[in-house]
Amino acid sequence: MNSITALPATMKFIDHGAGGPASSMQMATGALPVLADDEVLIRVAAAGINRPDVSQRSGSYPPPKDASQVMGLEVAGNVAAVGSAVTRWKVGDAVCALTPGGGYAEYCKTPAAHCLPIPAGMSMLEAGALCETFFTVWANVFERARLVAGETLLIHGGSSGIGSTAIQLARVFGAAQIIVTCGDQAKIDYALRLGAHTGINYKTQDFVEATMAATGGLGADVILDMVGAPYFQKNMAAAALEGRIAQIAFQHGSKAELSMLPLMMRRLTWTGSTLRARPKSAKAAIAAALESQVWPKFAATPDALRPHIHATFPLEDVAKAHQMMESGTHFGKIVLTV
Amino acid sequence: MNSITALPATMKFIDHGAGGPASSMQMATGALPVLADDEVLIRVAAAGINRPDVSQRSGSYPPPKDASQVMGLEVAGNVAAVGSAVTRWKVGDAVCALTPGGGYAEYCKTPAAHCLPIPAGMSMLEAGALCETFFTVWANVFERARLVAGETLLIHGGSSGIGSTAIQLARVFGAAQIIVTCGDQAKIDYALRLGAHTGINYKTQDFVEATMAATGGLGADVILDMVGAPYFQKNMAAAALEGRIAQIAFQHGSKAELSMLPLMMRRLTWTGSTLRARPKSAKAAIAAALESQVWPKFAATPDALRPHIHATFPLEDVAKAHQMMESGTHFGKIVLTV
Repeated sequence: MNSITALPATMKFIDHGAGGPASSMQMATGALPVLADDEVLIRVAAAGINRPDVSQRSGSYPPPKDASQVMGLEVAGNVAAVGSAVTRWKVGDAVCALTPGGGYAEYCKTPAAHCLPIPAGMSMLEAGALCETFFTVWANVFERARLVAGETLLIHGGSSGIGSTAIQLARVFGAAQIIVTCGDQAKIDYALRLGAHTGINYKTQDFVEATMAATGGLGADVILDMVGAPYFQKNMAAAALEGRIAQIAFQHGSKAELSMLPLMMRRLTWTGSTLRARPKSAKAAIAAALESQVWPKFAATPDALRPHIHATFPLEDVAKAHQMMESGTHFGKIVLTV
Repeated sequence: MNSITALPATMKFIDHGAGGPASSMQMATGALPVLADDEVLIRVAAAGINRPDVSQRSGSYPPPKDASQVMGLEVAGNVAAVGSAVTRWKVGDAVCALTPGGGYAEYCKTPAAHCLPIPAGMSMLEAGALCETFFTVWANVFERARLVAGETLLIHGGSSGIGSTAIQLARVFGAAQIIVTCGDQAKIDYALRLGAHTGINYKTQDFVEATMAATGGLGADVILDMVGAPYFQKNMAAAALEGRIAQIAFQHGSKAELSMLPLMMRRLTWTGSTLRARPKSAKAAIAAALESQVWPKFAATPDALRPHIHATFPLEDVAKAHQMMESGTHFGKIVLTV
């Protein structure tokens, strides 16, 4: 491990103990992560908060065995040390990164191949809120569900971090129509400002009917869903012929009584993935695809493609950040500053 | 329409009236089909029987509005006339063809682009039993579910017409392991003779456990299913990481209580299609892919790729043919000779 300046002996991090409510988190002090040959140590400047963090904290989503037990799936900061096999990054480089966990800390390690340069014109704060949603949306909407220019994308949860990123990426890559579902008009307005063409209030409208109305009866070519069970049958009904449904979470359950007839009759494809469970090589491949295909867009279309930061909290106020995430009142991302 | 020899004024065909049991079918006499510019008229020598024919006869699967009301989705024979825009075929050419219906007759019309030359070394009888299963398996297993060399394919109904074709095509295209489920040992033996590596008796074995045992716990990369509801959850459990399930029928229903969790956690893809409902252009594209990729294999590996004819019946004995299909005792294809 090479580092220019001496690293401290210990670091601060957020410990959630055995798990529980937001108040169970507290600042702790411990050893810095030990690097493998292919890893880098990042001095964390900003760490994005994601919904899986809340599940991990409450105890319902244990991290993989070989990952840090500390929460935090994405960070931005400067490289503080590199493993012996790392050639791409050197100490001092500003990077944003997908992490295997451990982002709620002063220092965080991750494979070098999961780091990306800070995009052109972007602040460290914004970059800290970038990777989790960009990796997830790219892998699911563009790779698995193969959204291409000219198609229609239906995004559930249009004002969430994932939703915001999906709207922006779909817009930049030429989706002909971007339809979002949200729970109130303020969230719809936010999604429309980000680039969505049509907003559906799922509390007052049937999203299948509204999607069909917005598409001249054709339906959506790609549907990005994290709601789950109550939307399974409706997603199949809202999909176009040869439509693809990408399932990235089951926030309202994964079990339902289903008729699969539309899947065959309308030649749908239903797929999905979680990011955290994927092997290092798969995440590295997504990072490489993002760098070659998405990173140039940040410079070309800076206003169209930018993480929207709803709120920032210093690391010690992590409980407030989690409470805000759980309240569901945020638009876009919540970020910890370290 | 060009024809060398005068066509008869009328032809014989099988009329199933308003639908019902096999005995409701009878020989009838009627006008020959009228060709559109892009169609050919085939003097039918052999017409394959397929399961959808039985559904159509019994009244549960009405044909598309613009299709012949006569049963019969595949034929082989000689071209008897061609539409004004047809350049590929001339009167007298021996062809096998996917038809929009109308195969149970002395003459049948179909788009010229849905005809293929009789493969090298194949009899007219065999060629008449070729298209429906080859189009279906190619479009679903190879195009939609993207089976590639080195992968494992699980085929339900391994001794059916579809199953037989899937075994042979998977073998010829380099599948590392072909697993079939069948209802008795004789059918398993038949599937093994066709090239399957592993047979599972679904009446005495759990196919999920048996598939896992046969794959060292990895599961099947592609699953071809026509059983439906009782297999939905089990198919997801028997699929490998990144596995693909192709649904081509729902013989035992399409509704079930399902947990979709494995679809996301194991990054599965569930898709499917019916052949008959697809537009002419899609069927033409499948025909073109078969001709370029599969037809050369008939000459290169004649013994490995050959429709297995279980029984033939003259057109007037169609009721016996349907009774055999409904009994489920056949291995491979049942063909009408005209």
